[in-house]
Amino acid sequence: MKPVNAVDELIEALRCLPGVGPKSAQRMAFHLLQHDPAGAQRLGAALARALASVRRCARCNTFTEEEVCALCASPKRDPSALCIVETPADLATMEQTMAYRGHYFVLMGRLSPLDGVGPHEIGLDRLLARATDGAVKEVVLATNFTNEGEATAHYIGEMLRDRGLRITRIARGIPVGGELEYVDAGTLAQAFYERRPA
Amino acid sequence: MKPVNAVDELIEALRCLPGVGPKSAQRMAFHLLQHDPAGAQRLGAALARALASVRRCARCNTFTEEEVCALCASPKRDPSALCIVETPADLATMEQTMAYRGHYFVLMGRLSPLDGVGPHEIGLDRLLARATDGAVKEVVLATNFTNEGEATAHYIGEMLRDRGLRITRIARGIPVGGELEYVDAGTLAQAFYERRPA
Repeated sequence: MKPVNAVDELIEALRCLPGVGPKSAQRMAFHLLQHDPAGAQRLGAALARALASVRRCARCNTFTEEEVCALCASPKRDPSALCIVETPADLATMEQTMAYRGHYFVLMGRLSPLDGVGPHEIGLDRLLARATDGAVKEVVLATNFTNEGEATAHYIGEMLRDRGLRITRIARGIPVGGELEYVDAGTLAQAFYERRPA
Repeated sequence: MKPVNAVDELIEALRCLPGVGPKSAQRMAFHLLQHDPAGAQRLGAALARALASVRRCARCNTFTEEEVCALCASPKRDPSALCIVETPADLATMEQTMAYRGHYFVLMGRLSPLDGVGPHEIGLDRLLARATDGAVKEVVLATNFTNEGEATAHYIGEMLRDRGLRITRIARGIPVGGELEYVDAGTLAQAFYERRPA
């Protein structure tokens, strides 16, 4: 059914947001119209600007307005390390840790053959060129610990094997502050198998 | 901190939506940019259209693009009944029941003196004129069963008393399909006090 009036059209349009169903969309539309027209104005402008100017970084594939993103262009980052993440959100999370000072490559997805996402769709040809450009010494695989994330990490590990690179995977185990009693059995089993000298 | 780039600006702007925190806003922004630029385009256009054209119905106070909303203008609605709700969302919920065929008045809020919302802010002067226009015979109070909604219903009931109108309040009680075991004590007590001949 095609929405006919502006309010219904706005409610319908808000449903393109992930996690927003009909009830939330209605609540959002009424909130914007009644309490925050300035916010709605700002949101409209931000959408227009982002659509017009955001593209992919030529080096790391994340979102940026420049040819090369600020992080890739920064002289303060260690050029010998390349961390591979699935999404810009993962990159942002990794940056929040302040634990890593190297560069990134953002896959913008993960291998998922059933959904038609193969090596080309997540830019593995570009990743290969980037990882073997001579400056990179270590590649850190930081894809998710889901089945698809693990398969992607494995595939990339195989692709980069025997090229003189150190290939590492971020550690799996008990979360910091975690209590064994509340950790699922699979995680605890892995933490046991991958135990390290204390 | 002022966001400097288009992606951060979009994330920040999305936070004007109710119930959207920093994590959800980031997820929404990345989703729109990566998977649904067409949806983002549509959302931007819908926001612009709504901001430009949506105003309040001259009769019932709900959102509309016309001078008088479609429901108020409809000859199929019963002009002798006027249902008073707090928000357009409540109006929409009431309409879904298909139980009511009269007109509405939307307060766009509730009495809340501590927040500076008095009778004038929720248009009670306009409501008084509307309810006493001669056509209305029954006023159905359908504000929420919160403290403020109850106080608002009480205030409106007093305001319209002795004007030859039948004033009713939607029923309080056990939800349809509800089990006594899982109903809170306050609701069950009210359902008992307000018991009716079977």
